[in-house]
Amino acid sequence: MNTLMTSTESRVLAEVADQISDDLARRLRCSEIAPLLEEAISYCLLSGGKRLRPALVLLSAEATGVDRSIALGPACALEMIHTFSLVHDDLPAMDDDAMRRGRPTLHVQAGEATAILAGDAMLSMAFEWATDVAVEPGAIVRIVRELATATTDMISGQVYDTIGGLPTELTDEQRLQIIQRTKTGALLRAACRMGAICGEADPQTEEHLVAYGEALGEMFQIVDDLLDVTQTAEHVGKATGKDLEAGKLTSPGVVGIDKSREEVERLRQRAHAALAALGAEADPLRSLCDEMAVRTR
Amino acid sequence: MNTLMTSTESRVLAEVADQISDDLARRLRCSEIAPLLEEAISYCLLSGGKRLRPALVLLSAEATGVDRSIALGPACALEMIHTFSLVHDDLPAMDDDAMRRGRPTLHVQAGEATAILAGDAMLSMAFEWATDVAVEPGAIVRIVRELATATTDMISGQVYDTIGGLPTELTDEQRLQIIQRTKTGALLRAACRMGAICGEADPQTEEHLVAYGEALGEMFQIVDDLLDVTQTAEHVGKATGKDLEAGKLTSPGVVGIDKSREEVERLRQRAHAALAALGAEADPLRSLCDEMAVRTR
Repeated sequence: MNTLMTSTESRVLAEVADQISDDLARRLRCSEIAPLLEEAISYCLLSGGKRLRPALVLLSAEATGVDRSIALGPACALEMIHTFSLVHDDLPAMDDDAMRRGRPTLHVQAGEATAILAGDAMLSMAFEWATDVAVEPGAIVRIVRELATATTDMISGQVYDTIGGLPTELTDEQRLQIIQRTKTGALLRAACRMGAICGEADPQTEEHLVAYGEALGEMFQIVDDLLDVTQTAEHVGKATGKDLEAGKLTSPGVVGIDKSREEVERLRQRAHAALAALGAEADPLRSLCDEMAVRTR
Repeated sequence: MNTLMTSTESRVLAEVADQISDDLARRLRCSEIAPLLEEAISYCLLSGGKRLRPALVLLSAEATGVDRSIALGPACALEMIHTFSLVHDDLPAMDDDAMRRGRPTLHVQAGEATAILAGDAMLSMAFEWATDVAVEPGAIVRIVRELATATTDMISGQVYDTIGGLPTELTDEQRLQIIQRTKTGALLRAACRMGAICGEADPQTEEHLVAYGEALGEMFQIVDDLLDVTQTAEHVGKATGKDLEAGKLTSPGVVGIDKSREEVERLRQRAHAALAALGAEADPLRSLCDEMAVRTR
Protein backbone atom coordinates (compact mmCIF):
# COMPACT_ATOMS: atom_id res chain seq x y z
CA MET A 1 0.00 0.00 0.00
CA ASN A 2 2.71 2.38 1.03
CA THR A 3 4.80 1.69 -2.05
CA LEU A 4 1.85 2.65 -4.22
CA MET A 5 1.42 5.80 -2.18
CA THR A 6 5.04 6.71 -2.68
CA SER A 7 4.98 6.16 -6.40
CA THR A 8 2.03 8.49 -6.86
CA GLU A 9 3.62 11.14 -4.63
CA SER A 10 7.24 11.17 -5.76
CA ARG A 11 8.53 9.97 -9.10
CA VAL A 12 12.12 10.33 -7.86
CA LEU A 13 11.60 8.17 -4.76
CA ALA A 14 9.58 5.61 -6.72
CA GLU A 15 12.54 5.25 -9.07
CA VAL A 16 15.03 4.30 -6.33
CA ALA A 17 12.72 2.71 -3.71
CA ASP A 18 12.74 -0.77 -5.24
CA GLN A 19 16.53 -0.87 -5.52
CA ILE A 20 16.77 0.11 -1.86
CA SER A 21 14.11 -2.33 -0.67
CA ASP A 22 15.71 -5.19 -2.59
CA ASP A 23 19.09 -4.42 -1.09
CA LEU A 24 17.67 -4.11 2.43
CA ALA A 25 15.99 -7.51 2.03
CA ARG A 26 19.18 -9.09 0.70
CA ARG A 27 21.33 -7.70 3.54
CA LEU A 28 18.82 -8.83 6.14
CA ARG A 29 18.71 -12.36 4.65
CA CYS A 30 22.52 -12.56 4.73
CA SER A 31 22.77 -11.41 8.34
CA GLU A 32 23.51 -14.02 10.98
CA ILE A 33 21.04 -13.04 13.67
CA ALA A 34 18.48 -14.83 15.81
CA PRO A 35 15.59 -15.86 13.51
CA LEU A 36 13.10 -14.06 15.78
CA LEU A 37 15.06 -10.85 15.30
CA GLU A 38 15.23 -11.29 11.54
CA GLU A 39 11.48 -11.77 11.41
CA ALA A 40 10.82 -8.71 13.59
CA ILE A 41 13.22 -6.49 11.64
CA SER A 42 11.82 -7.70 8.33
CA TYR A 43 8.30 -6.83 9.55
CA CYS A 44 9.30 -3.19 10.09
CA LEU A 45 11.98 -2.68 7.47
CA LEU A 46 10.22 -4.21 4.48
CA SER A 47 6.77 -2.74 5.02
CA GLY A 48 7.04 0.18 2.64
CA GLY A 49 8.03 3.62 3.82
CA LYS A 50 9.21 6.48 1.65
CA ARG A 51 12.88 5.44 1.64
CA LEU A 52 13.69 9.16 1.68
CA ARG A 53 16.88 8.89 3.72
CA PRO A 54 18.55 6.09 1.74
CA ALA A 55 17.40 7.74 -1.49
CA LEU A 56 19.20 10.93 -0.41
CA VAL A 57 22.39 8.93 0.15
CA LEU A 58 22.20 7.36 -3.31
CA LEU A 59 21.22 10.58 -5.10
CA SER A 60 23.87 12.64 -3.31
CA ALA A 61 26.50 10.14 -4.43
CA GLU A 62 25.08 10.33 -7.95
CA ALA A 63 25.19 14.12 -7.84
CA THR A 64 28.98 13.90 -7.43
CA GLY A 65 29.20 11.95 -10.69
CA VAL A 66 29.49 8.32 -9.54
CA ASP A 67 27.10 5.40 -9.95
CA ARG A 68 24.54 5.60 -7.18
CA SER A 69 24.88 1.87 -6.40
CA ILE A 70 28.23 2.44 -4.72
CA ALA A 71 26.41 4.03 -1.79
CA LEU A 72 23.94 1.19 -1.10
CA GLY A 73 25.64 0.00 2.11
CA PRO A 74 25.56 3.38 3.87
CA ALA A 75 22.09 4.04 2.41
CA CYS A 76 20.68 0.84 3.89
CA ALA A 77 22.46 1.61 7.16
CA LEU A 78 20.67 4.93 7.40
CA GLU A 79 17.29 3.34 6.69
CA MET A 80 17.99 0.87 9.53
CA ILE A 81 18.68 3.78 11.89
CA HIS A 82 15.47 5.50 10.82
CA THR A 83 13.47 2.29 11.25
CA PHE A 84 14.98 1.54 14.68
CA SER A 85 13.98 5.04 15.81
CA LEU A 86 10.38 4.50 14.67
CA VAL A 87 10.17 1.18 16.52
CA HIS A 88 11.47 2.62 19.78
CA ASP A 89 9.44 5.85 19.44
CA ASP A 90 6.26 3.79 19.08
CA LEU A 91 6.85 1.90 22.37
CA PRO A 92 4.27 2.25 25.18
CA ALA A 93 6.73 4.21 27.35
CA MET A 94 7.34 6.64 24.47
CA ASP A 95 4.64 7.75 21.97
CA ASP A 96 2.57 4.60 22.59
CA ASP A 97 1.47 4.20 18.96
CA ALA A 98 -0.48 1.12 17.91
CA MET A 99 -0.37 1.68 14.14
CA ARG A 100 2.45 2.49 11.71
CA ARG A 101 2.29 2.40 7.91
CA GLY A 102 -1.23 1.00 8.11
CA ARG A 103 -0.21 -2.03 10.22
CA PRO A 104 0.14 -2.81 13.94
CA THR A 105 3.40 -1.45 15.36
CA LEU A 106 6.07 -4.04 16.21
CA HIS A 107 5.44 -4.12 19.96
CA VAL A 108 1.72 -4.72 19.31
CA GLN A 109 2.53 -7.43 16.79
CA ALA A 110 5.43 -9.21 18.52
CA GLY A 111 5.62 -7.92 22.09
CA GLU A 112 7.53 -5.16 23.78
CA ALA A 113 10.72 -7.15 24.53
CA THR A 114 11.05 -8.10 20.86
CA ALA A 115 10.49 -4.49 19.80
CA ILE A 116 13.17 -3.18 22.16
CA LEU A 117 15.70 -5.83 21.09
CA ALA A 118 14.90 -5.55 17.38
CA GLY A 119 15.43 -1.78 17.58
CA ASP A 120 18.77 -2.31 19.33
CA ALA A 121 19.83 -4.86 16.71
CA MET A 122 18.91 -2.52 13.85
CA LEU A 123 21.07 0.15 15.43
CA SER A 124 24.15 -2.06 15.69
CA MET A 125 23.62 -3.79 12.33
CA ALA A 126 23.51 -0.36 10.71
CA PHE A 127 27.16 0.11 11.62
CA GLU A 128 28.10 -3.18 9.95
CA TRP A 129 26.29 -2.15 6.78
CA ALA A 130 27.72 1.37 6.82
CA THR A 131 31.24 -0.02 6.40
CA ASP A 132 30.23 -2.06 3.33
CA VAL A 133 31.28 0.45 0.69
CA ALA A 134 34.09 0.39 -1.87
CA VAL A 135 35.89 3.61 -0.98
CA GLU A 136 39.21 4.06 0.80
CA PRO A 137 39.20 3.20 4.53
CA GLY A 138 39.61 6.83 5.64
CA ALA A 139 36.34 7.66 3.89
CA ILE A 140 34.61 4.70 5.53
CA VAL A 141 35.72 5.97 8.95
CA ARG A 142 34.19 9.37 8.10
CA ILE A 143 30.93 7.65 7.09
CA VAL A 144 30.82 5.74 10.39
CA ARG A 145 31.43 8.92 12.40
CA GLU A 146 28.77 10.83 10.50
CA LEU A 147 26.25 8.03 11.03
CA ALA A 148 27.07 7.80 14.73
CA THR A 149 26.91 11.52 15.50
CA ALA A 150 23.73 11.96 13.47
CA THR A 151 22.09 9.07 15.32
CA THR A 152 23.10 10.50 18.67
CA ASP A 153 21.79 13.94 17.61
CA MET A 154 18.50 12.38 16.55
CA ILE A 155 18.16 10.74 19.97
CA SER A 156 18.90 14.06 21.69
CA GLY A 157 16.14 15.57 19.58
CA GLN A 158 13.75 12.86 20.64
CA VAL A 159 14.61 13.63 24.28
CA TYR A 160 13.93 17.36 23.77
CA ASP A 161 10.68 16.59 21.99
CA THR A 162 9.23 13.99 24.35
CA ILE A 163 10.91 14.53 27.73
CA GLY A 164 12.18 18.11 27.52
CA GLY A 165 15.27 19.59 29.09
CA LEU A 166 15.86 22.56 26.76
CA PRO A 167 16.87 25.81 28.52
CA THR A 168 13.73 27.59 29.70
CA GLU A 169 14.86 31.00 28.39
CA LEU A 170 14.49 29.90 24.75
CA THR A 171 11.46 31.05 22.74
CA ASP A 172 9.10 28.42 21.29
CA GLU A 173 10.50 29.18 17.84
CA GLN A 174 14.07 28.57 19.04
CA ARG A 175 13.07 25.33 20.75
CA LEU A 176 11.23 24.15 17.67
CA GLN A 177 14.29 24.83 15.54
CA ILE A 178 16.61 22.87 17.85
CA ILE A 179 14.18 19.94 17.92
CA GLN A 180 13.85 19.96 14.12
CA ARG A 181 17.59 20.18 13.49
CA THR A 182 18.25 17.22 15.75
CA LYS A 183 15.20 14.96 15.63
CA THR A 184 14.56 14.97 11.86
CA GLY A 185 17.31 17.15 10.46
CA ALA A 186 20.33 15.19 11.65
CA LEU A 187 19.65 12.05 9.59
CA LEU A 188 18.67 13.95 6.43
CA ARG A 189 21.80 16.08 6.62
CA ALA A 190 23.89 12.96 7.31
CA ALA A 191 22.30 11.23 4.31
CA CYS A 192 23.65 13.92 1.97
CA ARG A 193 27.08 13.98 3.59
CA MET A 194 27.39 10.20 3.52
CA GLY A 195 26.44 10.20 -0.17
CA ALA A 196 29.02 12.90 -0.88
CA ILE A 197 31.71 10.89 0.91
CA CYS A 198 30.75 7.75 -1.05
CA GLY A 199 31.24 9.82 -4.22
CA GLU A 200 34.59 11.09 -2.91
CA ALA A 201 33.37 14.64 -3.52
CA ASP A 202 35.69 17.60 -3.03
CA PRO A 203 35.06 19.49 0.25
CA GLN A 204 33.10 22.27 -1.47
CA THR A 205 30.71 19.91 -3.24
CA GLU A 206 30.25 18.04 0.02
CA GLU A 207 29.25 21.27 1.77
CA HIS A 208 26.81 22.14 -1.03
CA LEU A 209 25.13 18.77 -0.61
CA VAL A 210 25.00 19.14 3.17
CA ALA A 211 23.41 22.59 2.79
CA TYR A 212 20.82 21.03 0.49
CA GLY A 213 20.16 18.31 3.07
CA GLU A 214 19.71 20.91 5.80
CA ALA A 215 17.17 22.94 3.83
CA LEU A 216 15.34 19.81 2.72
CA GLY A 217 15.27 18.47 6.28
CA GLU A 218 13.77 21.64 7.70
CA MET A 219 11.24 21.79 4.88
CA PHE A 220 10.33 18.12 5.33
CA GLN A 221 9.49 18.61 9.01
CA ILE A 222 7.32 21.67 8.39
CA VAL A 223 5.39 19.79 5.69
CA ASP A 224 4.99 16.90 8.15
CA ASP A 225 3.63 19.26 10.79
CA LEU A 226 1.24 20.82 8.25
CA LEU A 227 -0.03 17.37 7.23
CA ASP A 228 -0.62 16.53 10.90
CA VAL A 229 -3.14 19.40 11.19
CA THR A 230 -4.62 19.37 7.68
CA GLN A 231 -4.93 15.71 6.64
CA THR A 232 -6.86 12.65 7.80
CA ALA A 233 -5.09 9.70 9.41
CA GLU A 234 -6.40 7.40 6.67
CA HIS A 235 -4.79 9.52 3.98
CA VAL A 236 -1.41 9.92 5.71
CA GLY A 237 -1.25 6.30 6.94
CA LYS A 238 -0.51 7.15 10.58
CA ALA A 239 -2.36 8.95 13.36
CA THR A 240 -2.81 12.71 12.75
CA GLY A 241 -3.68 15.51 15.15
CA LYS A 242 -1.39 13.77 17.64
CA ASP A 243 1.13 16.61 17.93
CA LEU A 244 -1.53 19.06 19.07
CA GLU A 245 -2.98 16.50 21.46
CA ALA A 246 0.44 15.77 22.95
CA GLY A 247 1.16 19.50 23.28
CA LYS A 248 4.20 19.15 21.01
CA LEU A 249 5.80 22.15 19.38
CA THR A 250 5.03 22.29 15.66
CA SER A 251 5.59 24.91 13.00
CA PRO A 252 1.87 25.64 12.38
CA GLY A 253 1.36 25.69 16.14
CA VAL A 254 4.12 28.25 16.70
CA VAL A 255 3.98 30.51 13.60
CA GLY A 256 0.62 29.54 12.06
CA ILE A 257 -0.36 27.62 8.93
CA ASP A 258 0.17 30.46 6.42
CA LYS A 259 3.62 31.39 7.65
CA SER A 260 4.57 27.69 7.71
CA ARG A 261 3.57 27.42 4.05
CA GLU A 262 5.71 30.45 3.17
CA GLU A 263 8.59 28.86 5.04
CA VAL A 264 8.25 25.69 2.96
CA GLU A 265 8.64 27.74 -0.24
CA ARG A 266 11.61 29.68 1.18
CA LEU A 267 13.37 26.42 2.12
CA ARG A 268 12.60 24.83 -1.26
CA GLN A 269 14.39 27.75 -2.93
CA ARG A 270 17.27 27.51 -0.48
CA ALA A 271 17.69 23.82 -1.31
CA HIS A 272 17.86 24.68 -5.02
CA ALA A 273 20.37 27.46 -4.38
CA ALA A 274 22.62 25.04 -2.50
CA LEU A 275 22.87 22.92 -5.64
CA ALA A 276 23.59 25.86 -7.99
CA ALA A 277 27.21 24.84 -8.57
CA LEU A 278 26.28 21.23 -9.38
CA GLY A 279 25.43 19.92 -12.85
CA ALA A 280 22.66 17.80 -14.31
CA GLU A 281 23.70 14.86 -12.09
CA ALA A 282 21.96 16.74 -9.25
CA ASP A 283 18.63 16.99 -11.12
CA PRO A 284 17.02 14.10 -9.20
CA LEU A 285 17.79 15.96 -5.94
CA ARG A 286 16.22 19.13 -7.41
CA SER A 287 13.06 17.27 -8.43
CA LEU A 288 12.92 15.46 -5.09
CA CYS A 289 12.86 18.68 -3.15
CA ASP A 290 10.09 20.09 -5.37
CA GLU A 291 8.07 16.92 -4.85
CA MET A 292 8.60 16.94 -1.07
CA ALA A 293 7.34 20.54 -0.89
CA VAL A 294 3.93 19.56 -2.26
CA ARG A 295 3.51 16.04 -0.85
CA THR A 296 0.21 15.30 0.84
CA ARG A 297 1.26 12.22 2.88
CA MET B 1 31.16 0.71 46.88
CA ASN B 2 31.63 -1.28 43.71
CA THR B 3 35.11 0.08 43.09
CA LEU B 4 36.17 -1.10 46.52
CA MET B 5 34.67 -4.49 45.76
CA THR B 6 36.62 -4.70 42.56
CA SER B 7 39.92 -3.78 44.12
CA THR B 8 39.63 -6.51 46.72
CA GLU B 9 38.60 -9.08 44.10
CA SER B 10 40.99 -8.35 41.24
CA ARG B 11 44.29 -6.57 41.51
CA VAL B 12 44.55 -6.41 37.71
CA LEU B 13 41.16 -4.76 37.21
CA ALA B 14 41.76 -2.39 40.12
CA GLU B 15 44.93 -1.24 38.38
CA VAL B 16 43.19 -0.19 35.16
CA ALA B 17 39.67 0.64 36.40
CA ASP B 18 40.46 4.23 37.38
CA GLN B 19 42.10 5.03 34.05
CA ILE B 20 39.02 3.67 32.27
CA SER B 21 36.52 5.46 34.53
CA ASP B 22 38.37 8.76 34.14
CA ASP B 23 38.39 8.42 30.38
CA LEU B 24 34.70 7.46 30.28
CA ALA B 25 33.85 10.53 32.37
CA ARG B 26 35.97 12.79 30.14
CA ARG B 27 34.42 11.47 26.92
CA LEU B 28 30.92 11.84 28.31
CA ARG B 29 31.63 15.43 29.41
CA CYS B 30 32.92 16.29 25.92
CA SER B 31 29.93 14.80 24.14
CA GLU B 32 27.33 17.19 22.71
CA ILE B 33 24.16 15.46 23.80
CA ALA B 34 20.93 16.51 25.50
CA PRO B 35 21.78 17.28 29.16
CA LEU B 36 19.10 14.83 30.33
CA LEU B 37 20.83 12.08 28.36
CA GLU B 38 24.23 12.99 29.74
CA GLU B 39 22.89 12.82 33.27
CA ALA B 40 21.19 9.46 32.65
CA ILE B 41 24.23 7.93 30.97
CA SER B 42 26.52 9.26 33.68
CA TYR B 43 24.26 7.64 36.32
CA CYS B 44 24.77 4.20 34.77
CA LEU B 45 28.23 4.48 33.30
CA LEU B 46 30.05 6.02 36.26
CA SER B 47 28.54 3.92 39.03
CA GLY B 48 31.31 1.38 39.39
CA GLY B 49 31.22 -1.93 37.63
CA LYS B 50 34.14 -4.28 37.07
CA ARG B 51 35.32 -2.62 33.82
CA LEU B 52 36.23 -6.12 32.66
CA ARG B 53 35.52 -5.54 28.97
CA PRO B 54 37.45 -2.28 28.54
CA ALA B 55 40.26 -3.72 30.67
CA LEU B 56 40.50 -6.64 28.24
CA VAL B 57 40.83 -4.19 25.33
CA LEU B 58 43.64 -2.29 27.07
CA LEU B 59 45.46 -5.39 28.29
CA SER B 60 45.18 -7.16 24.92
CA ALA B 61 46.72 -4.12 23.26
CA GLU B 62 49.45 -4.13 25.92
CA ALA B 63 50.04 -7.84 25.33
CA THR B 64 51.05 -6.99 21.75
CA GLY B 65 53.77 -4.68 23.05
CA VAL B 66 52.18 -1.22 22.75
CA ASP B 67 51.16 1.26 25.43
CA ARG B 68 47.71 0.31 26.64
CA SER B 69 46.47 3.91 26.47
CA ILE B 70 46.30 3.75 22.69
CA ALA B 71 43.22 1.53 23.00
CA LEU B 72 41.19 3.79 25.32
CA GLY B 73 38.67 4.89 22.64
CA PRO B 74 37.64 1.35 21.63
CA ALA B 75 37.79 0.27 25.30
CA CYS B 76 35.36 2.99 26.37
CA ALA B 77 33.17 2.15 23.36
CA LEU B 78 32.88 -1.43 24.52
CA GLU B 79 31.97 -0.38 28.06
CA MET B 80 29.22 1.83 26.60
CA ILE B 81 27.83 -1.18 24.70
CA HIS B 82 27.93 -3.30 27.85
CA THR B 83 26.22 -0.56 29.87
CA PHE B 84 23.53 0.04 27.23
CA SER B 85 22.74 -3.68 27.30
CA LEU B 86 22.34 -3.66 31.09
CA VAL B 87 19.99 -0.66 30.94
CA HIS B 88 17.76 -2.23 28.31
CA ASP B 89 17.88 -5.69 29.91
CA ASP B 90 16.67 -4.19 33.19
CA LEU B 91 13.55 -2.63 31.57
CA PRO B 92 10.10 -3.76 32.80
CA ALA B 93 9.37 -5.49 29.46
CA MET B 94 12.66 -7.41 29.76
CA ASP B 95 14.12 -8.69 33.07
CA ASP B 96 12.24 -6.05 35.09
CA ASP B 97 15.07 -5.43 37.55
CA ALA B 98 14.76 -2.64 40.12
CA MET B 99 18.34 -2.72 41.43
CA ARG B 100 21.73 -2.73 39.72
CA ARG B 101 25.13 -2.24 41.36
CA GLY B 102 23.38 -1.52 44.66
CA ARG B 103 21.32 1.39 43.26
CA PRO B 104 17.92 1.78 41.57
CA THR B 105 18.07 0.86 37.88
CA LEU B 106 17.83 3.76 35.42
CA HIS B 107 14.17 3.29 34.52
CA VAL B 108 13.29 3.30 38.24
CA GLN B 109 15.41 6.38 38.80
CA ALA B 110 14.59 8.44 35.69
CA GLY B 111 11.64 6.79 33.97
CA GLU B 112 11.27 4.23 31.23
CA ALA B 113 11.43 6.63 28.27
CA THR B 114 14.74 8.05 29.51
CA ALA B 115 16.13 4.54 30.02
CA ILE B 116 15.19 3.47 26.49
CA LEU B 117 16.65 6.62 24.92
CA ALA B 118 19.80 6.64 27.08
CA GLY B 119 20.45 3.03 26.06
CA ASP B 120 20.02 3.93 22.41
CA ALA B 121 22.35 6.91 22.77
CA MET B 122 25.03 4.80 24.46
CA LEU B 123 24.86 2.37 21.55
CA SER B 124 25.39 5.05 18.91
CA MET B 125 27.96 7.04 20.90
CA ALA B 126 29.98 3.85 21.24
CA PHE B 127 30.59 3.93 17.50
CA GLU B 128 31.91 7.49 17.69
CA TRP B 129 34.28 6.54 20.46
CA ALA B 130 35.39 3.35 18.73
CA THR B 131 36.85 5.39 15.85
CA ASP B 132 38.91 7.55 18.21
CA VAL B 133 42.15 5.58 18.01
CA ALA B 134 45.52 6.44 16.46
CA VAL B 135 45.94 3.49 14.09
CA GLU B 136 45.62 3.43 10.31
CA PRO B 137 42.05 3.83 8.96
CA GLY B 138 41.82 0.22 7.71
CA ALA B 139 42.37 -0.95 11.29
CA ILE B 140 39.70 1.45 12.57
CA VAL B 141 37.22 0.01 10.07
CA ARG B 142 38.02 -3.48 11.40
CA ILE B 143 37.43 -2.26 14.98
CA VAL B 144 34.05 -0.80 14.00
CA ARG B 145 33.00 -4.03 12.27
CA GLU B 146 34.08 -6.13 15.24
CA LEU B 147 32.17 -3.90 17.65
CA ALA B 148 29.05 -3.96 15.46
CA THR B 149 28.95 -7.72 14.87
CA ALA B 150 29.70 -8.47 18.53
CA THR B 151 26.90 -6.15 19.63
CA THR B 152 24.46 -7.77 17.22
CA ASP B 153 25.54 -11.23 18.43
CA MET B 154 25.03 -10.16 22.03
CA ILE B 155 21.49 -9.01 21.19
CA SER B 156 20.78 -12.33 19.44
CA GLY B 157 21.95 -14.06 22.62
CA GLN B 158 19.62 -11.93 24.69
CA VAL B 159 16.75 -12.97 22.39
CA TYR B 160 17.62 -16.68 22.77
CA ASP B 161 17.90 -16.28 26.54
CA THR B 162 14.75 -14.27 27.24
CA ILE B 163 12.39 -14.89 24.30
CA GLY B 164 13.67 -18.14 22.81
CA GLY B 165 13.65 -19.24 19.20
CA LEU B 166 16.51 -21.77 19.24
CA PRO B 167 15.86 -24.98 17.24
CA THR B 168 13.93 -27.42 19.46
CA GLU B 169 16.13 -30.40 18.54
CA LEU B 170 19.13 -28.95 20.43
CA THR B 171 20.04 -30.37 23.85
CA ASP B 172 20.03 -28.04 26.87
CA GLU B 173 23.83 -28.14 26.85
CA GLN B 174 23.96 -27.03 23.21
CA ARG B 175 21.46 -24.25 23.82
CA LEU B 176 23.38 -23.07 26.86
CA GLN B 177 26.57 -22.94 24.80
CA ILE B 178 24.98 -20.89 22.02
CA ILE B 179 23.51 -18.46 24.54
CA GLN B 180 26.84 -18.12 26.35
CA ARG B 181 28.85 -17.59 23.14
CA THR B 182 26.50 -14.84 22.01
CA LYS B 183 25.10 -13.15 25.11
CA THR B 184 28.29 -12.84 27.18
CA GLY B 185 30.98 -14.33 24.96
CA ALA B 186 30.66 -12.01 21.97
CA LEU B 187 31.74 -8.82 23.77
CA LEU B 188 34.60 -10.49 25.69
CA ARG B 189 35.96 -12.04 22.50
CA ALA B 190 35.55 -8.70 20.69
CA ALA B 191 37.41 -6.95 23.51
CA CYS B 192 40.51 -9.05 22.90
CA ARG B 193 40.31 -8.72 19.12
CA MET B 194 39.84 -4.95 19.32
CA GLY B 195 42.84 -4.68 21.63
CA ALA B 196 44.91 -6.79 19.25
CA ILE B 197 43.94 -4.56 16.31
CA CYS B 198 44.82 -1.44 18.32
CA GLY B 199 48.25 -3.00 18.90
CA GLU B 200 48.53 -3.81 15.18
CA ALA B 201 49.24 -7.42 16.13
CA ASP B 202 50.18 -9.97 13.46
CA PRO B 203 47.28 -12.30 12.53
CA GLN B 204 48.62 -15.18 14.67
CA THR B 205 48.92 -13.07 17.82
CA GLU B 206 45.45 -11.71 17.17
CA GLU B 207 44.04 -15.25 17.01
CA HIS B 208 45.85 -16.20 20.25
CA LEU B 209 44.25 -13.24 22.00
CA VAL B 210 40.82 -14.06 20.59
CA ALA B 211 41.19 -17.68 21.78
CA TYR B 212 42.05 -16.34 25.23
CA GLY B 213 38.97 -14.10 25.13
CA GLU B 214 36.77 -17.04 24.17
CA ALA B 215 37.97 -19.22 27.02
CA LEU B 216 37.75 -16.37 29.50
CA GLY B 217 34.25 -15.49 28.32
CA GLU B 218 32.97 -19.01 28.75
CA MET B 219 34.62 -19.26 32.16
CA PHE B 220 33.23 -15.89 33.23
CA GLN B 221 29.64 -16.95 32.50
CA ILE B 222 29.96 -20.24 34.37
CA VAL B 223 31.36 -18.42 37.40
CA ASP B 224 28.46 -15.96 37.13
CA ASP B 225 25.97 -18.82 37.07
CA LEU B 226 27.67 -20.45 40.06
CA LEU B 227 27.53 -17.19 42.03
CA ASP B 228 23.82 -16.90 41.23
CA VAL B 229 23.14 -20.17 43.06
CA THR B 230 25.78 -20.00 45.80
CA GLN B 231 25.97 -16.34 46.92
CA THR B 232 23.66 -13.84 48.57
CA ALA B 233 22.34 -10.82 46.66
CA GLU B 234 23.94 -8.49 49.20
CA HIS B 235 27.35 -9.96 48.55
CA VAL B 236 27.10 -9.96 44.73
CA GLY B 237 25.41 -6.53 44.52
CA LYS B 238 22.52 -7.66 42.31
CA ALA B 239 19.59 -10.08 42.70
CA THR B 240 20.65 -13.76 42.92
CA GLY B 241 18.64 -16.92 42.45
CA LYS B 242 16.90 -15.13 39.57
CA ASP B 243 18.07 -17.50 36.84
CA LEU B 244 16.47 -20.49 38.53
CA GLU B 245 13.31 -18.53 39.21
CA ALA B 246 13.10 -17.38 35.59
CA GLY B 247 13.70 -20.95 34.36
CA LYS B 248 16.84 -19.80 32.53
CA LEU B 249 19.46 -22.27 31.37
CA THR B 250 22.59 -22.12 33.53
CA SER B 251 25.68 -24.24 33.75
CA PRO B 252 25.00 -25.53 37.31
CA GLY B 253 21.38 -26.14 36.28
CA VAL B 254 22.36 -28.21 33.24
CA VAL B 255 25.53 -30.06 34.33
CA GLY B 256 25.52 -29.54 38.12
CA ILE B 257 27.67 -27.47 40.48
CA ASP B 258 30.64 -29.86 40.66
CA LYS B 259 30.97 -30.31 36.91
CA SER B 260 30.62 -26.54 36.46
CA ARG B 261 33.54 -26.01 38.84
CA GLU B 262 35.66 -28.50 36.88
CA GLU B 263 34.73 -26.66 33.68
CA VAL B 264 35.95 -23.37 35.20
CA GLU B 265 39.35 -24.93 35.85
CA ARG B 266 39.52 -26.48 32.37
CA LEU B 267 38.75 -23.10 30.77
CA ARG B 268 41.26 -21.29 32.98
CA GLN B 269 43.95 -23.63 31.67
CA ARG B 270 42.76 -23.17 28.10
CA ALA B 271 43.01 -19.39 28.48
CA HIS B 272 46.61 -19.78 29.69
CA ALA B 273 47.43 -22.15 26.82
CA ALA B 274 46.13 -19.59 24.30
CA LEU B 275 48.73 -17.10 25.57
CA ALA B 276 51.64 -19.59 25.49
CA ALA B 277 53.35 -17.88 22.54
CA LEU B 278 53.13 -14.42 24.12
CA GLY B 279 55.73 -12.87 26.41
CA ALA B 280 55.65 -11.13 29.77
CA GLU B 281 53.50 -8.33 28.27
CA ALA B 282 50.60 -10.80 28.53
CA ASP B 283 51.11 -11.41 32.27
CA PRO B 284 48.25 -9.11 33.32
CA LEU B 285 45.90 -11.16 31.11
CA ARG B 286 47.21 -14.35 32.75
CA SER B 287 46.64 -12.97 36.26
CA LEU B 288 43.23 -11.62 35.29
CA CYS B 289 42.00 -15.01 34.20
CA ASP B 290 43.24 -16.60 37.44
CA GLU B 291 41.46 -13.92 39.43
CA MET B 292 38.22 -14.28 37.47
CA ALA B 293 38.23 -18.04 38.13
CA VAL B 294 38.03 -17.52 41.90
CA ARG B 295 35.98 -14.32 42.13
CA THR B 296 33.09 -14.37 44.57
CA ARG B 297 31.07 -11.44 43.15
